[in-house]
Amino acid sequence: MKVIADLSVVPLGVGVSLAPYIAACEKILARAGLKTRLHGYGTNIEGEWDQVMKAIKECHEKLHEMGVPRISSSLHIGTRVDKEQSLEDRIRSVEQKMK
Amino acid sequence: MKVIADLSVVPLGVGVSLAPYIAACEKILARAGLKTRLHGYGTNIEGEWDQVMKAIKECHEKLHEMGVPRISSSLHIGTRVDKEQSLEDRIRSVEQKMK
Amino acid sequence: MKVIADLSVVPLGVGVSLAPYIAACEKILARAGLKTRLHGYGTNIEGEWDQVMKAIKECHEKLHEMGVPRISSSLHIGTRVDKEQSLEDRIRSVEQKMK
Amino acid sequence: MKVIADLSVVPLGVGVSLAPYIAACEKILARAGLKTRLHGYGTNIEGEWDQVMKAIKECHEKLHEMGVPRISSSLHIGTRVDKEQSLEDRIRSVEQKMK
Repeated sequence: MKVIADLSVVPLGVGVSLAPYIAACEKILARAGLKTRLHGYGTNIEGEWDQVMKAIKECHEKLHEMGVPRISSSLHIGTRVDKEQSLEDRIRSVEQKMK
Repeated sequence: MKVIADLSVVPLGVGVSLAPYIAACEKILARAGLKTRLHGYGTNIEGEWDQVMKAIKECHEKLHEMGVPRISSSLHIGTRVDKEQSLEDRIRSVEQKMK
Repeated sequence: MKVIADLSVVPLGVGVSLAPYIAACEKILARAGLKTRLHGYGTNIEGEWDQVMKAIKECHEKLHEMGVPRISSSLHIGTRVDKEQSLEDRIRSVEQKMK
Repeated sequence: MKVIADLSVVPLGVGVSLAPYIAACEKILARAGLKTRLHGYGTNIEGEWDQVMKAIKECHEKLHEMGVPRISSSLHIGTRVDKEQSLEDRIRSVEQKMK
């Protein structure tokens, strides 16, 4: 089952500069061979369900290893069986309707 | 790794009455042996990471089997390594501070 | 416009014990005359759109006054024009389908 | 109070093609003079709290006018008082840590 997801990881107990932790997650997602797209409040992810979820788990594990005592992530999970749709398709379909 | 999660499943393309689909997910979560707690905008879930994620995947699969063409779920995922904390602990700690 | 919302406030830069901040928000929501229901990953809120949003803004302002440098909240916002539905209605309709 | 937000609007009861509704919201956000950035699972928004929330309310109202009976939106709301930070700053700070 293919999934289009959006992940926003919030490390707690390590102050207000979160970029090093977000970057560590980005690297894990990229190394997992997933298609990702960083935005201003998270990361779009496209891939197979199990691969995506495995990478997100690794991200939590890595951050705890880096010393983060507590994490609260937000995840949007989109699946559909009516048609194939990529991240680019989704953005393009909205942009076309805005013309 | 233990996780405290909050799941809000939104089936698309099946009208506005979502209760049968939410109920189908609840049953899957319960049968998976997870501690759950239904609220007005989703379900709190407590359990081991892999078990929780497996049950959520089954929920998406089941809904697609039931004829839902598209699903958009929201998931909050909380992990911590500084201490054990249950759903009840979380609620109690806020309620104590409100006195 | 009536709204059924779900708010999860995450204060950053104040360590891992978030209960005092969540409790401060709960008090603001209650004082605003909103119907609320605390759960293990946030709070259900029922009320008029403007009142709900005003209270959430006051919550962010109050937490910053309390010394929180950064906040990341998650909010679910549900509106419908086909019928009236309360928080209790939503829970009841799922529970009935689970029998 | 400045806010960096992320909005994902999910119209219910109008089938599975959501792009016309998302596009209608995008236009409202743009006309409100807000800085926005469409991504594959929502839209980043930067602006003053009241302006951002007013535009999101208009978006719900507009969609209901367009015939959408029910809407479930997800919103992330970020505020901070320790420093000014734009959407671009947030992305840049993560990208720098990935090098």
